[in-house]
Amino acid sequence: MNRMLTSCGLLITALLLGFQTLAQTPPRQPTPNDTLKSPKVLTDNRVAIQLYAPKASEVTVVGDFMTVMKPLNLTKDANGVWSVTVGPLKPDYYTYTLTVDGVRTMDPKNPVIKQGMSSLENVMALPGAETVFQDNRPVPHGELRQVWYQSSTLGMARRMHVYTPPGYEKGTTKYPVFYLLHGGGDDDSGWPTVGRAGFILDNLLAAGQAKPMIVVMPNGSMPLPPSSGMPNPAAMQQMRALFADELLKEIMPYVEKTYRTQPNRENRAIAGLSMGGFQTLDVTLTRPELFNYVGVFSSGFFGATIDEAETKYARALNDPGFNKNKKLFWIEIGKDDFVMDANKKTMALLDKHQIKYQYKETAGGHTWTNWRQYLNEYVPLLFR
Amino acid sequence: MNRMLTSCGLLITALLLGFQTLAQTPPRQPTPNDTLKSPKVLTDNRVAIQLYAPKASEVTVVGDFMTVMKPLNLTKDANGVWSVTVGPLKPDYYTYTLTVDGVRTMDPKNPVIKQGMSSLENVMALPGAETVFQDNRPVPHGELRQVWYQSSTLGMARRMHVYTPPGYEKGTTKYPVFYLLHGGGDDDSGWPTVGRAGFILDNLLAAGQAKPMIVVMPNGSMPLPPSSGMPNPAAMQQMRALFADELLKEIMPYVEKTYRTQPNRENRAIAGLSMGGFQTLDVTLTRPELFNYVGVFSSGFFGATIDEAETKYARALNDPGFNKNKKLFWIEIGKDDFVMDANKKTMALLDKHQIKYQYKETAGGHTWTNWRQYLNEYVPLLFR
Repeated sequence: MNRMLTSCGLLITALLLGFQTLAQTPPRQPTPNDTLKSPKVLTDNRVAIQLYAPKASEVTVVGDFMTVMKPLNLTKDANGVWSVTVGPLKPDYYTYTLTVDGVRTMDPKNPVIKQGMSSLENVMALPGAETVFQDNRPVPHGELRQVWYQSSTLGMARRMHVYTPPGYEKGTTKYPVFYLLHGGGDDDSGWPTVGRAGFILDNLLAAGQAKPMIVVMPNGSMPLPPSSGMPNPAAMQQMRALFADELLKEIMPYVEKTYRTQPNRENRAIAGLSMGGFQTLDVTLTRPELFNYVGVFSSGFFGATIDEAETKYARALNDPGFNKNKKLFWIEIGKDDFVMDANKKTMALLDKHQIKYQYKETAGGHTWTNWRQYLNEYVPLLFR
Repeated sequence: MNRMLTSCGLLITALLLGFQTLAQTPPRQPTPNDTLKSPKVLTDNRVAIQLYAPKASEVTVVGDFMTVMKPLNLTKDANGVWSVTVGPLKPDYYTYTLTVDGVRTMDPKNPVIKQGMSSLENVMALPGAETVFQDNRPVPHGELRQVWYQSSTLGMARRMHVYTPPGYEKGTTKYPVFYLLHGGGDDDSGWPTVGRAGFILDNLLAAGQAKPMIVVMPNGSMPLPPSSGMPNPAAMQQMRALFADELLKEIMPYVEKTYRTQPNRENRAIAGLSMGGFQTLDVTLTRPELFNYVGVFSSGFFGATIDEAETKYARALNDPGFNKNKKLFWIEIGKDDFVMDANKKTMALLDKHQIKYQYKETAGGHTWTNWRQYLNEYVPLLFR
């Protein structure tokens, strides 16, 4: 749909601003850029990434379609068009970023982007049977709400995204709540956009494969004093403590006060990816009584945190009642994920204390391709 | 806040992905880019736009802070950092785009962007007393909802944004509805993002200067057959007809069925900018009985459409009851706007038929700076 909308946008711009252009800019020679398409889906699920840059001396691309994130060179043709063909790729949604002579550049032909806290990436769609679960299909859609609230814990305005299921607006039902956490460098727009959480929920609900639920996607990126500098255990600890407070003292009370929820352990789930998985472990082992469903995607305790975890979480780890209060403790990761070691050490710690969990290892690494799949597997297990 | 969040994002990325970088990329020399900030707000409301591009031969910027959209050259220092200082500027939110050796480039140091149908622009904030009306302030906030619906008229899934005022979620009140239309090349995300519609409504409501209302921001960019080619009256007419049908047959029934609305003329308002103003004129003169409040920002009939308007809208133009059914017909435009001629011709047509309207001419041109101001002036006049 993006390509179509894009062409419409161009036409409408032409229609309504055309004469401004005519009035203000001198006529120019047509260039290969005028008709260039990027990304361009070819046969056999290959994709051409193309850029018109006649003056550039080097153009590279990195994207999460790569198994190793090594910049790939585009080659220049006689018309000044740089291109590289990738694939065949498994149909999916992929992110990529161009670099032109050392300058990080969004593909000028592709307005579809993923927003991070500090950077942008382009998104490309390669539709196919494998993407049906996450496509925008003609099924009833829930609403994705941007919600600003004032956080006393952080002393600032904070935003979260809240998915309410189809029928919520007209109904009176009270719903279970699933807290879904993003990874490092992202914000609360991660899961609703590149994570396709709304469409994944819509499709599962339409197929009767999930219980209707409210999905709360907070901003898990905590403000830290610049003085905390580069990675260090103190900063990790401070960030972890801040997020637990934000979720427990600000977000959960706001959600349970504002929406039609079932505010009890049986109807609360939490899951997160990478940093969000780490935050999920922290919240779950700090307040084990709050959530019956726990999901940890591509994560674990790492660095200094693994050493302190056994002490910090002693109460939960040694609580004989911990397991019976968890209907689901789900750990999933790709076999090539760079946090696999942290993940294994974390499972070893849980094993040592007879904490029960289900473990699934998939192909691939630390990618949204995996996280969308994990969400699609996790949601049907909730609130059963 | 963006700058702070950005630095947090960077820190968190470092914290959680840092060792991936360490593990996978060889150590490198620090570059001036590591500490570069762009845009950088200087004293006296001047702003430095900066880019590290040692290999580039030309870097330019265009932005809506310019009175004439003529590319401005950045200059390169000995470290390969290109920069230009603009201003002093009136505190506001501005869009800009960099071009590096002919390649349109988003500022790699600024993740804040405005999404168009076919292109992106960077957004920079220059806060001050003049921006208070549109800032994210500690007042009660409404919710901004992304709503997907299936359009029979267009035979596709369509998205709109719906603003519900503070208290909507917990209340039982029925609200008036304001349909707010974007301009050519934008989509339904225009008003909620660069248009700052949510914050403008929040601030007016907190100050008691507006009636609580639902604001519906549809996607006004209509899909057209590629065959319709470049600007021509037939394509204009088709697009206009499509939007009127989409609004009247799909969007309004969906909104009045789904939300707690007061579905009558006294409680319906419409306004739009540029293309959206044109669509507003079309809907209002086609179905004059539907809206008591009409706003036309930086627009008018232009090209072939002015000639056909008198015929097409004869019924409304010659209806002696037209004026009494309009509590407000508001036309506003900047004196330097390139559609001023179309605007004047449109007012002449209304005058000829004794159609009453209020006209306000401001400084400036065809910019979001004006449209946010116009929204802030128009909303307090509604539903009185």
